[in-house]
Amino acid sequence: MQAVAPTQSLPTPAGRRTVGEMGERLLVIGGDGAGMSAASLARRRRPDLEIVALEMGRWTSYSACGIPYLVGGALDGIADLVARSPEEFRSMRIDVRTEHEVVGLDLSSRKAEVYNRAHGRTFHLGFDLLHIATGARPRRPDIPGLDLPHVHGVQTLADATRLLDDARSHRPGHVVVVGSGYVGLELAEAFLDRGASVTVVEASAEVMGSLDPDMGSLVARSMRQAGVTVRTGEELTAVTESAVVTSAGEFPADLVVLGLGVEPNADLAAAAGVDTGVRGSIVVDRQQRTSSEGVWAAGDCCQSYNIVSGRPVHLPLGTVANKQGRVAGINISGGYATFPGVAGTAVTRICRTEIGRTGLREQEARDAGFGVSAVRIEATTTAAYMPDAQHTTVKLIAERGGGRLLGAQIVGGRGSAKRVDVIATALAAGMNVEDLIGLDLGYAPPYSSVWDPVQVAARQLLPQL
Amino acid sequence: MQAVAPTQSLPTPAGRRTVGEMGERLLVIGGDGAGMSAASLARRRRPDLEIVALEMGRWTSYSACGIPYLVGGALDGIADLVARSPEEFRSMRIDVRTEHEVVGLDLSSRKAEVYNRAHGRTFHLGFDLLHIATGARPRRPDIPGLDLPHVHGVQTLADATRLLDDARSHRPGHVVVVGSGYVGLELAEAFLDRGASVTVVEASAEVMGSLDPDMGSLVARSMRQAGVTVRTGEELTAVTESAVVTSAGEFPADLVVLGLGVEPNADLAAAAGVDTGVRGSIVVDRQQRTSSEGVWAAGDCCQSYNIVSGRPVHLPLGTVANKQGRVAGINISGGYATFPGVAGTAVTRICRTEIGRTGLREQEARDAGFGVSAVRIEATTTAAYMPDAQHTTVKLIAERGGGRLLGAQIVGGRGSAKRVDVIATALAAGMNVEDLIGLDLGYAPPYSSVWDPVQVAARQLLPQL
Repeated sequence: MQAVAPTQSLPTPAGRRTVGEMGERLLVIGGDGAGMSAASLARRRRPDLEIVALEMGRWTSYSACGIPYLVGGALDGIADLVARSPEEFRSMRIDVRTEHEVVGLDLSSRKAEVYNRAHGRTFHLGFDLLHIATGARPRRPDIPGLDLPHVHGVQTLADATRLLDDARSHRPGHVVVVGSGYVGLELAEAFLDRGASVTVVEASAEVMGSLDPDMGSLVARSMRQAGVTVRTGEELTAVTESAVVTSAGEFPADLVVLGLGVEPNADLAAAAGVDTGVRGSIVVDRQQRTSSEGVWAAGDCCQSYNIVSGRPVHLPLGTVANKQGRVAGINISGGYATFPGVAGTAVTRICRTEIGRTGLREQEARDAGFGVSAVRIEATTTAAYMPDAQHTTVKLIAERGGGRLLGAQIVGGRGSAKRVDVIATALAAGMNVEDLIGLDLGYAPPYSSVWDPVQVAARQLLPQL
Repeated sequence: MQAVAPTQSLPTPAGRRTVGEMGERLLVIGGDGAGMSAASLARRRRPDLEIVALEMGRWTSYSACGIPYLVGGALDGIADLVARSPEEFRSMRIDVRTEHEVVGLDLSSRKAEVYNRAHGRTFHLGFDLLHIATGARPRRPDIPGLDLPHVHGVQTLADATRLLDDARSHRPGHVVVVGSGYVGLELAEAFLDRGASVTVVEASAEVMGSLDPDMGSLVARSMRQAGVTVRTGEELTAVTESAVVTSAGEFPADLVVLGLGVEPNADLAAAAGVDTGVRGSIVVDRQQRTSSEGVWAAGDCCQSYNIVSGRPVHLPLGTVANKQGRVAGINISGGYATFPGVAGTAVTRICRTEIGRTGLREQEARDAGFGVSAVRIEATTTAAYMPDAQHTTVKLIAERGGGRLLGAQIVGGRGSAKRVDVIATALAAGMNVEDLIGLDLGYAPPYSSVWDPVQVAARQLLPQL
């Protein structure tokens, strides 16, 4: 790869050139979904725009969510996870430069300071329009030993490469996952599939804090049944070369996975004077515009808006990143689109158990000021008489009185997880429990009972409102 | 079972007694979902009510939709399909009388003429409140031979018993299904599983008329791949002892299944003066009240309202029947509930292919006066890189201009069918294509791409509106 010369045509100090002028340059910082969705949309809608995308790592537009399946052995290699390579973007006339890290931003002079990692050189690059999609990084609390080489945060494909190398070269017998978010628990299962003895350490009383504890306990049960040691209510105090130390004791660990969530990579933007909000994430409006004119942001580095609570949140998920990137790309190129906010939908599979959640948890709803009615029901995802009928547990949360839907959690067998999509859609529409009962959902014995499980829950909740 | 004496306390000719009076009697005609849902709700809400339910057949509250799985051998026996037996209802103080057929109704004197099939006796039974849930019967056009004993309409468990007996005793080598609705095609597969040679004869150019032809052809392809002979554009002209004769020729048939749809059993109600509408089905309002005071109706005998077209329709499906029965039961017992209408959602599995549909077909939308934009896309139901990724085809139909969603059809591998539920929910909310793109749907590699297939379709449709 060639080193890039500083830009020739910088805008006047007064600001960027007007939209529509020939020769305008869009700079995209970050080559994953939020960045490249925007770049692709902008490319399609404004053929005249010069688009440069800088990516710190070696890959673009990849599925970080696929890393556990790579580690577990279901996929052949890292290439499987790349949706679109730098070469493909270049053929679309998007000038992607990998291993390029932006180390400084001057928004008034419209210049980025860029470090070319491959050549060890720093240069300046001018821009007219700027899109920040710098993502997030695994949270690493200030605990002794977290910088040891066998401790892995898992966020990028570079992380995945290191993790896979470590797993292959050292064949760890004891793997400890610290924290119990989605990726952590998915990796716990992946290492189980690799034959390791796996322990999950969680400081809270129950795993998977995105669920209410009564639903999280169902996930913990599945994990224990599959052979994972689950230690809840234990605070991590240190990691050593060969062990993990918690408030409850010490136990062997050849490889440690950090599953403590992520924090936004927003330092660059914040240092440049862009407003930040929840957990330091970049504040954006519905068009993904930051507080600085001509500067957009999208994805894990950004703040979102929760459509149920009406509150700003930081929700670093791939779906959100891609949607926000699309919206930014349309607006950057002179169109109009808005990101409506998040319902907080997430699905996953842990140890053969399907998990789906959307909206607010019970406590979260109370904290947001709602009077809450909740119900938990057992059902099957097919007609109960089908030979392969699978159990499922649905928790439905609604506002007392009017019955506005606030959230749902589903844990169970095949066909459970994606059922939250109906609730996510109902949340977007502001539906209530009675509306949910009236929905014309699909029924056939292999796929549902005549009342879908989410409606069984709604029927039970209605008289309790 | 004892013969039932005529009622002692008939209401005055002026009309029924007022709601709330002790000793009132609710008569329910029909012991399946639409009838017994209403009876159960009424029982729970009005302990004082005397409830008599008359059922022509021997079973109550059964899943007719499960019959193909019974015939295919996945279920042990008919008992599997019974959700609640007459005995269970009796223990709830609902006086269920099976093998009792209502042969006449006098709404002014509030009396039913009832034929006890087991004892061959007729008697009169008075009522104050009446709920009609007489269901539907397979359509039998006036074609020679359709009354032969090896020709089976499949609607009730009695039909299922006859069909199973025939299949077991004669082990038919050649089975012909006439028509290609859900139950017909499901039975085609069931007989394939029993080792028969199976032919489907359909008069239209493509199978499964509830789909657009371009989507129906995908179903036909799956059926042919599984070994079913699919003959479209052939009109049935006669059935003989050993063959089916169509406009295109004659071919062997030891057993014939009628899959030509059903027509409402509304003659009894119509003869009593209750208004009927589409295809002769009973007209009801949003509370499931018929045109006659103190008379409710629900289920396959009833008319419904399509929430997309705003038109009355006859949609004989189990989900609709159960929902309408619930609404009727609440209103009968002095409460208030409404049935919001149908989106026309249906799902099924034919020869390992999943099928889902909701809303209006493309032509149906045009017929209803909509300007239509439609798109058909290919996607996978999981992340494309997962080893078990399944293909799916999504067709999305929206109104030109504003982009109001009008319908969707999905045909594909595992995880396809129930995705229509999101569209069904969106239809109920009156969402448009842009709303669908913005929905926060669940994503994890085993369950979806980062853009759910329905959103991939929406994104492609948006610029074409």
